[in-house]
Amino acid sequence: MKNILMGLCALATATSCQMHRAADSQITLSSVEKNIAISDAKLTAADFGLSSDIDWSVSKKTLHGGMQEGVELVTINNGEIEIDIIPTRGMNVMSVRSKDITLGWDSPVKEIVHPRNVNLNYNGGLGWLDSFNEWMVRCGLEYSGHPGDDNGRLMTLHGRIAHIPASELKVEVDKLPPHRISVTGIVNEVWFKGANFTLETTISTLPGSNTFRFDDVVTNNSSQDKEFQVLYHANFAKELLEKGSRMEGTIAEVQPFNDYAAKSLDSYETYDAPASVWADEKVYQITPFADKNGFAHFMLHNQKADKAVSFSFNTDALPYLTQWKNEDSRENGYVTGLEPGNTFPANRAHERKMGRLPKIKAGESINYHLVYSLHSGKSSVEKAQSKIIQLNKGHKVKFIKTPENK
Amino acid sequence: MKNILMGLCALATATSCQMHRAADSQITLSSVEKNIAISDAKLTAADFGLSSDIDWSVSKKTLHGGMQEGVELVTINNGEIEIDIIPTRGMNVMSVRSKDITLGWDSPVKEIVHPRNVNLNYNGGLGWLDSFNEWMVRCGLEYSGHPGDDNGRLMTLHGRIAHIPASELKVEVDKLPPHRISVTGIVNEVWFKGANFTLETTISTLPGSNTFRFDDVVTNNSSQDKEFQVLYHANFAKELLEKGSRMEGTIAEVQPFNDYAAKSLDSYETYDAPASVWADEKVYQITPFADKNGFAHFMLHNQKADKAVSFSFNTDALPYLTQWKNEDSRENGYVTGLEPGNTFPANRAHERKMGRLPKIKAGESINYHLVYSLHSGKSSVEKAQSKIIQLNKGHKVKFIKTPENK
Amino acid sequence: MKNILMGLCALATATSCQMHRAADSQITLSSVEKNIAISDAKLTAADFGLSSDIDWSVSKKTLHGGMQEGVELVTINNGEIEIDIIPTRGMNVMSVRSKDITLGWDSPVKEIVHPRNVNLNYNGGLGWLDSFNEWMVRCGLEYSGHPGDDNGRLMTLHGRIAHIPASELKVEVDKLPPHRISVTGIVNEVWFKGANFTLETTISTLPGSNTFRFDDVVTNNSSQDKEFQVLYHANFAKELLEKGSRMEGTIAEVQPFNDYAAKSLDSYETYDAPASVWADEKVYQITPFADKNGFAHFMLHNQKADKAVSFSFNTDALPYLTQWKNEDSRENGYVTGLEPGNTFPANRAHERKMGRLPKIKAGESINYHLVYSLHSGKSSVEKAQSKIIQLNKGHKVKFIKTPENK
Repeated sequence: MKNILMGLCALATATSCQMHRAADSQITLSSVEKNIAISDAKLTAADFGLSSDIDWSVSKKTLHGGMQEGVELVTINNGEIEIDIIPTRGMNVMSVRSKDITLGWDSPVKEIVHPRNVNLNYNGGLGWLDSFNEWMVRCGLEYSGHPGDDNGRLMTLHGRIAHIPASELKVEVDKLPPHRISVTGIVNEVWFKGANFTLETTISTLPGSNTFRFDDVVTNNSSQDKEFQVLYHANFAKELLEKGSRMEGTIAEVQPFNDYAAKSLDSYETYDAPASVWADEKVYQITPFADKNGFAHFMLHNQKADKAVSFSFNTDALPYLTQWKNEDSRENGYVTGLEPGNTFPANRAHERKMGRLPKIKAGESINYHLVYSLHSGKSSVEKAQSKIIQLNKGHKVKFIKTPENK
Repeated sequence: MKNILMGLCALATATSCQMHRAADSQITLSSVEKNIAISDAKLTAADFGLSSDIDWSVSKKTLHGGMQEGVELVTINNGEIEIDIIPTRGMNVMSVRSKDITLGWDSPVKEIVHPRNVNLNYNGGLGWLDSFNEWMVRCGLEYSGHPGDDNGRLMTLHGRIAHIPASELKVEVDKLPPHRISVTGIVNEVWFKGANFTLETTISTLPGSNTFRFDDVVTNNSSQDKEFQVLYHANFAKELLEKGSRMEGTIAEVQPFNDYAAKSLDSYETYDAPASVWADEKVYQITPFADKNGFAHFMLHNQKADKAVSFSFNTDALPYLTQWKNEDSRENGYVTGLEPGNTFPANRAHERKMGRLPKIKAGESINYHLVYSLHSGKSSVEKAQSKIIQLNKGHKVKFIKTPENK
Repeated sequence: MKNILMGLCALATATSCQMHRAADSQITLSSVEKNIAISDAKLTAADFGLSSDIDWSVSKKTLHGGMQEGVELVTINNGEIEIDIIPTRGMNVMSVRSKDITLGWDSPVKEIVHPRNVNLNYNGGLGWLDSFNEWMVRCGLEYSGHPGDDNGRLMTLHGRIAHIPASELKVEVDKLPPHRISVTGIVNEVWFKGANFTLETTISTLPGSNTFRFDDVVTNNSSQDKEFQVLYHANFAKELLEKGSRMEGTIAEVQPFNDYAAKSLDSYETYDAPASVWADEKVYQITPFADKNGFAHFMLHNQKADKAVSFSFNTDALPYLTQWKNEDSRENGYVTGLEPGNTFPANRAHERKMGRLPKIKAGESINYHLVYSLHSGKSSVEKAQSKIIQLNKGHKVKFIKTPENK
């Protein structure tokens, strides 16, 4: 690595030619504050003054060509899974890959689109769809949900945070075993006389683990309390979505989003094969319940139940989960979203009317924790399932059959 | 060239430091797939393992300053003409230059504007005009034509394809004489739940020739049939446009676009001098007829008929030609567009109503062929004219004097 | 410097590896015409063939990370004050700093946002607020003022000129003493069939001086006369704004912008402390009078009157001054704008109706001169004050108490 760094220095300008090392355990990859941007790097245990039996790394590269020219990509390879983080797109995650499971999907949008190529206002506020292809897209923070008017202002689909480049980006490794590997980014959503939010996200994993987590903090820097929305738009397909795939979770209540979804409420947990020509989306508004630690638990597994993802999140900050079943053709993007949020995905005006739109106080910070695990093989999947079954004992899902939206 | 390539490697990052050579006859200049972007290069016959009596080259450079910072420009110099292709702007062509003829014009917009600086929604959907200065701008593909509402959606002027950077860009040279030089680009126009088109364009010429051609393929990657529009907005001025310039072609039918154009229908073929202060545009909807090979033939020559451009295109894919006479002042952009298309340039809603809006089937590909020649000297111009005169024998132009649009 | 230039050449491509020196006294830093972009440089007296007792420099760097990736910044350090000019943002000025006075403010927007990240249409035409944080932002040129409809077109807040990168950028130093240091940029605001303006701005200062000036020329390149607007949105806070700060000037007439401002008309000259939660803005429309040389004179000083900025401008081109009192919380951006302009800041439609909207003739150029001085210490402040008091002798401010806007 030292040689690569020296190579970078030879190429870069005087002000940007060094990675900043606040300590052995922390390396800055890009920073507004320090005016640093490292285009390409590969960091290993040795760069943090550590040795490791597991061959892990954190690398950064710049993408070229088409709509992805200039996009920066950070990959954590913990020896077991690879996590592709996109600092240029609000610290979204393109995909997570183990040997035989991929978190992600095949959108018709193939490139990782630079935000500068996206006009959120386009097409009546649907411009967000021009770059929609990541496994994990955060929606929010000033607003999220469907486009449309709220008090005379056009709410563009799912807000702005996914199209704001991170201002600060660093890699940290715990000095103490098991040497957690963390990538932290800071993303600012701000306009004069309006929103003034900071998202600080840490995406971390342990060497050799099949588990990773998001520890996010959203702060309101304004002197006024503010409405805000957060939605973790996580999208699954690949090996996990097929006819017979099934979503399970600690579910208290389910309500279809609209009349079309209401027709298939009975089968909301299971999935169809992709359509051959076209299929409309079905959306269900799910209210989960939490375990004694305050976490809801969900999973999605394939038909054979030998591949799965499981995940949990803190319901104090994320009291809702939106299930988005898009059983469209493969060409059009066969996918399901399982999306923890602090509201459901209708327009902000509707969420406010329904009493779901929260406020964050002046100066307040709110914490979000999401833990994801990849399960390969029947026994691993069963173990994840049995945990959810155990939690569901004594609970009965309440079905609200009449949708809120027409 | 080898030295230049090595120089580039010394400058570039590890992942982008090599041009990809699939064979001696093909060199990749930029590629999403291979994560390659070569900023500056000059390729000659030797780089393709050939020798040549004609001193031809294909070069690539990056533009700097103002609105063109970061724009990539590829120039084919075949020894006789130079063709400036803009991969960053959907493979548009800025200008084509021989010793004494230029295809192109003097727009008030002087720079080659990077698409990232353009907001198509701006000014009620007229943002496209912020960068309008190329000889050849493709319009489409999801929609083209005048801005306005179509089923609740704002169609921005002339669509998006001109503002999408090419995802793949390569140079090919035929191993066999006469060693055709080709630049091929792939441009993707796609959004989730919407358009999913690919334009693959090959712009090619022979060493020492005054002729070049576009061989374009538009493919619908969706699982659904889709409406689409294609317009080759080719704009002429410079040595070819003046008082007395004349457009000729294999014309079956002419209709003025609006009342203003209707007043000058009699003189639609000839041109006035530029206005001193301002002049409105006149548009004519021309339906050409094809020769036995399926090609329509047109030309534009100066007053003396000693300089001309002639061109032909396949009418199965491009059944219409829009003539745009913008006899405005030189400062405001004196120019005429002669624009083969699959519709006329009214809003998509109007074209649909008139039965002109075509569909492309799921998975279908449609081929577009346009051949342009530069003619210098009376005899060369006469030869091109006589071909059109010959084809027009026995044909009479049908005039529809009432415009469709008000 | 020679070494740094050679270093740059080693890094840059063949076409961009040299700064252009038209003469010893002029160095091009970026240029569309010459296809040059120097990312990093530091120029001193020696680079212009001069020696200097005062250690002055002009440097250029590129900013990295977040919303400011790729923004270019030019700093004039004249030995006494530093001026941060942003060529990427229409030659705006981020801040001016002496030992104990800063022209500038603390906007909630912290980064110098690249125009490519800004959509002026966003949020009903308020997108300009996404990057509002500079000391000096020019507004205009086709239009300025509040967003809203003018003849069917959305006027976005304060126009486009602040979001257009300079096409040409050079540094000049007078060969003759006192060796004025000038940075000149050319910014083009143009669209086909619309605006066609050039702003040529020269920002200059003398070595060791506490004064600097703008000498701007706006030219209409169209063949038609055009309406246009120019507003120098200069924003003050830092050491100059606090409870008891006071604005003084050669004021002929004052009118509140709206009813809210009308309530505090009596105290329009003085400032309150920042609000703790939120405060609305108060705007006053001021018509200044000029001295015998045609210049109006204004100043802003702190409560103690030991720190001040004074400025003057030519009233033939800039007949109005808008006072914008934004006594909001520190978090939300406590600031006042003192903004010479050729109209007031209502929507263009309103300014036209009030007879204030000027035209610039085809081919005409109009000159703008603004001179700013930083005053440290009571005696320096008093001297600036006494000049204004002297000019005000025999003048009485006319108050128009009824606002034009509701």
